[in-house]
Amino acid sequence: MKIDNASNGIAIARYIGAARSRAIPADVIEAARMCLVDWVAVCMGARSEEAGRSVHAVVDGWRVPGRSTLLIGGQSGATGAALCNGTLAHCLDFDDTYVKANTHTSAPLWAATLALGQEVGASEEEMLTAFITGFEVAARVGYGLGEAVTARGFHATGVFGRLGAAAACAVLLRLDEGAAQHALGVAATQASGLVGSFGTMSKPFHAGKAAMDGVLSAQLAAAGFKAATELLNPGGALATAIIQDRAATIAVADFTEWEILNNSFKPYAACHLTHPAIDAARSLTLTSDEVGRVSKVRADIGALAHQITGGKTGTPASSLEGKFDIKYCLALALHGRPLSAADFAEPFRPEPRILETAQKVDAINSASHGYSSAAITVGFKSGEERRAEIAIAKGHPGNPMTWDDMRAKLVGLVGAGGEADALFEDLRQFGSGSQKGLRAIERLAGESRPAGRSPSAKSH
Amino acid sequence: MKIDNASNGIAIARYIGAARSRAIPADVIEAARMCLVDWVAVCMGARSEEAGRSVHAVVDGWRVPGRSTLLIGGQSGATGAALCNGTLAHCLDFDDTYVKANTHTSAPLWAATLALGQEVGASEEEMLTAFITGFEVAARVGYGLGEAVTARGFHATGVFGRLGAAAACAVLLRLDEGAAQHALGVAATQASGLVGSFGTMSKPFHAGKAAMDGVLSAQLAAAGFKAATELLNPGGALATAIIQDRAATIAVADFTEWEILNNSFKPYAACHLTHPAIDAARSLTLTSDEVGRVSKVRADIGALAHQITGGKTGTPASSLEGKFDIKYCLALALHGRPLSAADFAEPFRPEPRILETAQKVDAINSASHGYSSAAITVGFKSGEERRAEIAIAKGHPGNPMTWDDMRAKLVGLVGAGGEADALFEDLRQFGSGSQKGLRAIERLAGESRPAGRSPSAKSH
Repeated sequence: MKIDNASNGIAIARYIGAARSRAIPADVIEAARMCLVDWVAVCMGARSEEAGRSVHAVVDGWRVPGRSTLLIGGQSGATGAALCNGTLAHCLDFDDTYVKANTHTSAPLWAATLALGQEVGASEEEMLTAFITGFEVAARVGYGLGEAVTARGFHATGVFGRLGAAAACAVLLRLDEGAAQHALGVAATQASGLVGSFGTMSKPFHAGKAAMDGVLSAQLAAAGFKAATELLNPGGALATAIIQDRAATIAVADFTEWEILNNSFKPYAACHLTHPAIDAARSLTLTSDEVGRVSKVRADIGALAHQITGGKTGTPASSLEGKFDIKYCLALALHGRPLSAADFAEPFRPEPRILETAQKVDAINSASHGYSSAAITVGFKSGEERRAEIAIAKGHPGNPMTWDDMRAKLVGLVGAGGEADALFEDLRQFGSGSQKGLRAIERLAGESRPAGRSPSAKSH
Repeated sequence: MKIDNASNGIAIARYIGAARSRAIPADVIEAARMCLVDWVAVCMGARSEEAGRSVHAVVDGWRVPGRSTLLIGGQSGATGAALCNGTLAHCLDFDDTYVKANTHTSAPLWAATLALGQEVGASEEEMLTAFITGFEVAARVGYGLGEAVTARGFHATGVFGRLGAAAACAVLLRLDEGAAQHALGVAATQASGLVGSFGTMSKPFHAGKAAMDGVLSAQLAAAGFKAATELLNPGGALATAIIQDRAATIAVADFTEWEILNNSFKPYAACHLTHPAIDAARSLTLTSDEVGRVSKVRADIGALAHQITGGKTGTPASSLEGKFDIKYCLALALHGRPLSAADFAEPFRPEPRILETAQKVDAINSASHGYSSAAITVGFKSGEERRAEIAIAKGHPGNPMTWDDMRAKLVGLVGAGGEADALFEDLRQFGSGSQKGLRAIERLAGESRPAGRSPSAKSH
């Protein structure tokens, strides 16, 4: 089929309509499973975050009967669960990123897929198909537009994540190509999220709201709603509204590759831009004795990493400041810390010896390093030097996290113990026929809504 | 208090926080009541529209227990009712417009106010205060930006209506100034609605979704959610995202006047741009005998009216086409028709004598006429001519609809009879202490959800 400018929305809808009959390669399935384990891990790690708790309080107040798991605890209908879990997933800013679209894709997509999937009684296999389809759609619409959209003030996760969530939900509701066009159209017309909200609870909320609106969009299309179908064309109404100078536009969709294989994960609970230097520091595997004899540390990092993380003092006042301070992060790494969520837990009590090492770090803006590369040179009091260079940081597609890395991340967020191990094993096999992953997720809801708060126990 | 650029959001939030202690002049109360009667009328007239029915099917499927009236029938929670009723209110494009912001204000605002007001058990008086406050907020943020926003691809109703709905809901939830800032912030970051969706069900959905998101925004703020508070400043993140060339921006809020007194209503069920010429034609009050002797009709209309409605054939194929055909509209007017909703009801069966008169109309692009003015010159076979000129069409602030006009509009949409009269009288007195208006609205929900579909009758 020839795809031209005028039929881009049709091509994407056709891809959605054919999802359930498409063969999915094993490595793509594995990638989607890793997205899920990562997503559950970052949600669980965020259960005490205020953004998630506020959203949960509101959804709880809606008193919606439903069987969709709230990972913060309890159950609700699909729209509320999508809102809650999508917000939770992005609270720590520790979730995965499809870098080519600057989009946190799993946060809204797994939230929407799980919530609606549970509501309609979908199997793990159906949810995997829906999620993967939604990921590919979000990636195609957002491909190459992340920086342009961000520069103009919109949060790419709110724009492209909403479309991906609608696509995933369209698969779960078994919409045909025609209805899928309308699901995409009504999702596109809700595209929102301001960069001006970064640094507030609204940033994770953007992911949750994208998930919720994605569920709604597919539900509307299933109910016969007819939206505009030209919005996703190159030069169409979505692109021209969010990138008004027309310097970039939506590309004609080409589904020959699987973009989910280009997803990035964060092994460390710090800013993404610190990761290559952390990898380099950790690769030196200094003993505590050696760390004590360090006199100077030079970190050669890319321009953006230098701009965002290089100018800090090494003496952060909070966990959040610590995550964006390359000196503090490298000190943690040199001391052998995993930089897991536990290393940035509140209350924040940095160790004096780590703060001392941080003072020895110089961050250098290096033209020879980019987004995912860095070098570190450690000088000892003896005059000896040791150097390590990282070409592609762990978590990027060229140097992916292993399942062991992901297990460690989950343990860091959920806490060590038999429950974390069991959860990991059940999720690791998601979609392999056992349905154990779904049951494990259902257990995470804990006790259901207490009987006294059930809508059936009230009269209205 | 001096309001400068940096404290615009604070000034608006302060206005919201002080709403319940503010004295509201009688003419402002009357204006809000007229908004309500108009809103109920256009909702009731749209109950068979597909957009409303699709949205209602989805909301019904959520099985939310609640006491907020769905004007299409039934009850739900506040978010679902706001979505349903807001969509319904804009289905016919017959609802009111705050022209300075190109915003259909009552559609989202009364939807949000009524839905959340019913949920929290607010009185009619509290709802009026909330609605008026929300209207003033939407008008202040959108003042003068309607054309700029529309030209750049965003539906002003989705942008400014969402903020107004959040403000109204903040009043109902009795948020203080601080919490109101966060309600505005989370509403602003959800601003959406593409002009590319015009002509589809998404256009009325924008109004409904703005209402729903407004409810959600206030609920979140009440639950402790903290949003960005600088988004509404002149040159702030909302303005620079939706008007990227910075040719216009949000003005510093000045609440010395009541902008609700500058609201426009549509007396006729046709395109707004046809209204001045219709007024002129109706003012001639031709007898049927005189209409039969007309040889030629010349309509001098403004440029935009000519562009949108002037080039049609006078032989519309559907009601929708008829609404945008000045020849057909003027023929109806010359034949003494009220151009009520009944004149454009489906199935569309135009009378031959009206089509014949329509063929005699010439529409002239007149530089001496603008948005709300027109002239009409009727030539008779005898050679006689009669001319009428309208400086400000009925429904604009300078020539407002009377309560009798509004009663006629409601009857045209709801149907003549004792029920329409009773509804009109009860709504006409909204907020005067009797609470009869609310009871009349509750009755419009008809039979509540059948017991068999109640969530309490199902197990999950």
